[in-house]
Amino acid sequence: MYDNGIQDNLKILFDPATVAVIGASDNPNKLGYHVMKSLTAGGFGGRIIPVNPGTKEIMHIPSFRSMADLSDPIDLAIIVIPAKLVPEIFEECVQKGVKGIVLITAGFKEIDDPAGGQLQAVLADTARRAGIPVIGPNTFGMINLRKNLNASFTPEFSGVEKGGVTLVSQSGGISHLLAFMAMRQNVGMSKIIGLGNRLNVDFARILPFLMEDPETEVIALYLEGEDRPRRLMEVAEAYRGKKPVIAMKAGSAESGNRAALSHTGSMAGKHEVYQGALTQSGILCVDDTQTLLDLARALTTCPPPEGPGMAVLTGQAGPGMAASDACEKEGLKLPFFDPETQDAINELLPPLALRTNPVDMGPAWYDSSAIQGIVRAVLEDENVAGIILLMMFASANRDAVPNLAPLLLEWKQKKPVITCLISPPGIWDEEVNRLEKAGAILNLPTPERAAKVMAGLRQYGKMMKKA
Amino acid sequence: MYDNGIQDNLKILFDPATVAVIGASDNPNKLGYHVMKSLTAGGFGGRIIPVNPGTKEIMHIPSFRSMADLSDPIDLAIIVIPAKLVPEIFEECVQKGVKGIVLITAGFKEIDDPAGGQLQAVLADTARRAGIPVIGPNTFGMINLRKNLNASFTPEFSGVEKGGVTLVSQSGGISHLLAFMAMRQNVGMSKIIGLGNRLNVDFARILPFLMEDPETEVIALYLEGEDRPRRLMEVAEAYRGKKPVIAMKAGSAESGNRAALSHTGSMAGKHEVYQGALTQSGILCVDDTQTLLDLARALTTCPPPEGPGMAVLTGQAGPGMAASDACEKEGLKLPFFDPETQDAINELLPPLALRTNPVDMGPAWYDSSAIQGIVRAVLEDENVAGIILLMMFASANRDAVPNLAPLLLEWKQKKPVITCLISPPGIWDEEVNRLEKAGAILNLPTPERAAKVMAGLRQYGKMMKKA
Repeated sequence: MYDNGIQDNLKILFDPATVAVIGASDNPNKLGYHVMKSLTAGGFGGRIIPVNPGTKEIMHIPSFRSMADLSDPIDLAIIVIPAKLVPEIFEECVQKGVKGIVLITAGFKEIDDPAGGQLQAVLADTARRAGIPVIGPNTFGMINLRKNLNASFTPEFSGVEKGGVTLVSQSGGISHLLAFMAMRQNVGMSKIIGLGNRLNVDFARILPFLMEDPETEVIALYLEGEDRPRRLMEVAEAYRGKKPVIAMKAGSAESGNRAALSHTGSMAGKHEVYQGALTQSGILCVDDTQTLLDLARALTTCPPPEGPGMAVLTGQAGPGMAASDACEKEGLKLPFFDPETQDAINELLPPLALRTNPVDMGPAWYDSSAIQGIVRAVLEDENVAGIILLMMFASANRDAVPNLAPLLLEWKQKKPVITCLISPPGIWDEEVNRLEKAGAILNLPTPERAAKVMAGLRQYGKMMKKA
Repeated sequence: MYDNGIQDNLKILFDPATVAVIGASDNPNKLGYHVMKSLTAGGFGGRIIPVNPGTKEIMHIPSFRSMADLSDPIDLAIIVIPAKLVPEIFEECVQKGVKGIVLITAGFKEIDDPAGGQLQAVLADTARRAGIPVIGPNTFGMINLRKNLNASFTPEFSGVEKGGVTLVSQSGGISHLLAFMAMRQNVGMSKIIGLGNRLNVDFARILPFLMEDPETEVIALYLEGEDRPRRLMEVAEAYRGKKPVIAMKAGSAESGNRAALSHTGSMAGKHEVYQGALTQSGILCVDDTQTLLDLARALTTCPPPEGPGMAVLTGQAGPGMAASDACEKEGLKLPFFDPETQDAINELLPPLALRTNPVDMGPAWYDSSAIQGIVRAVLEDENVAGIILLMMFASANRDAVPNLAPLLLEWKQKKPVITCLISPPGIWDEEVNRLEKAGAILNLPTPERAAKVMAGLRQYGKMMKKA
């Protein structure tokens, strides 16, 4: 694809040395104020250059009347001025040799008035000529957490933990939702990118960049529609297996479709056709926001299970049954163990216990070496491709998680270990967090979510094998 | 049912003036220690009487060698001594005129050895003769949060907020899971009851008690199997409509069934047959722990919608689409508004906005009176039986929730209002919490969970209409 350097310049757009904010403001009622706050409070290490014809200083940073007044080069321009003024600023960006633009301003292709689409076409032409990638228009912006670059109107995004998940979304609302969910669930993210109206950076263009981006481990997409669906599939196919890509495609419902039609200026199209095409090109489709986040997080640490056979090891029968029910509902199996494994378990648990799959380790609560023995035997069983390990806190099993930690750290997800280790707030949280950070487990708050994520991992593994 | 006073004595069991702990201990390795800690740290206002032949004082409370040594009456005895000693203690309880027993000890009907079942039969006989209701054996116990009575081996249960949901569970693990989830999600509970092996208090017996219990608003059941399923259905049918009852029945999967068979000593039975029978007798069945908790909580504040027509009002298009998709997937509808409503909305939103159902109120972010006008018009629309209201925080809409609060408080769920008002931790939490406490909204963390709960409310409403 002839792109005049747009693709290459994306690297600079996400890792600029200097950032100009066109329309920077000291007035909290203006988006230009929030963008300035995002950049400064987010701890961006490069140079921040407010541009506003009316002031000399914004947030204690010297400001410029125009980009032309500045002798140094500018890598990234964030634009938050009214739509009708943008074409002129785009020309100034070209003059200035700007390498990337985040165009937050709305009022382009998404509005009813055809003038909006025409204005966007003019900007697209300018950007193409100069080889400038543009995130937006009609977007909250983007955040590169690894570089402390918060190029959005939401300073709070900087509070998301750094990690391997990059979210690319057609909806600002979904980006905000997932970012806040990530904050509340300690999910680490790399970048959050709001594509908005996709002037010249669409899913098909951002995907190759993220595939080559060393800071992105898993790519999560929220799509409503795509202008170049075929191109997206081609790109995904070309990079199949390099990094996991998960997508949530909105518009399954009649009313949702109605909404997609007008939102961000693109047809949603037949939902099932889309999902089928995405799946065929190696993108894992999910149906809801929580699963999108859970699975993105899982794919940063868990290998996909090599088969459908799961072991459910539980400290209490009930949650083990809930996990077993959910596993089978999601298409996973609970096979019988290898006779050797079963013998080992039978030696460690009394006859009254449920010793086949699921295994109720309750009677061994007080005996940490027995629990370790069971977990180790099952981890090494060839019939078992993944483990769901559940333990609800009770006064008598307070040490169960610390006792299991060394084994889990040593094993380190050679086969995926998804846990549901649940205590009142503050008891196991720190230990669980430590095990998660070390990549030894992925902990989820209900047996059903644990099973659902394991099923998603399995589905991804199967897709990759077919390639 | 001739029960010799067992049913009446349940009231005293859950609201005793004096509680004896048979097997109380100062040794943290004993369950009797944790039970004492639960009672004392839980703030129980009545008298606590440790009973242990070996000591004079436990946790600074004078202890007795046996119940006979005490001249005052005992209402509730909590028993945590080895199984073989329990029959003798039961006789002492009868002598002493004890009104209720929580039998935590395991090793009865649930074990492989037929001696376990025989021992339980002996106890059942003693209890029936004396008219003593027994929670257990093989249970963590029970908690009556409204009376600060924590009669369990898990002191942390006392940290659950007080509220209207009573959980009755056949699994201690599920009770712990749901209680810890309730803690983390601010769900208020009334009682948490672990039925264990159900000596003489089973689901069929606890249901009438809870139906008459003024502190229980909604009853949530976790069942694996039931010894008297027909009786349970009769009781549920008799009380149909008095209070909502929701059930999660485990054992849908082959492996889960295998587990249920040995757990708590009862056959799980055909899953679908069970669910069908429960539904017919007015019990709402759900498939997972999170929905059980969400829906129990919802039924304490939200009226069921009178029809399937939902309005989705959203501050950002994407989350509104996710909610719309989820609503239709769950069998709800998004009807067109009444022309009058639509006219009102059209006056308040610019043409570029999505103004039919779902309504994207984004363009009115800065105009709180417009948002209020839209919400009010839709609340009053006869085509709309329930509202899902979504708003993701952004710097520019910080006041959206406080601005909507008076209207929501005034409306107070005349039709159900389920919200998804999501901010980074700490921004909207207090306001959302205040609105929830006032019964004005129910807030859920994802659009899909909001839709799922609304669908559950609708299903409950339909079941009640058929009665």
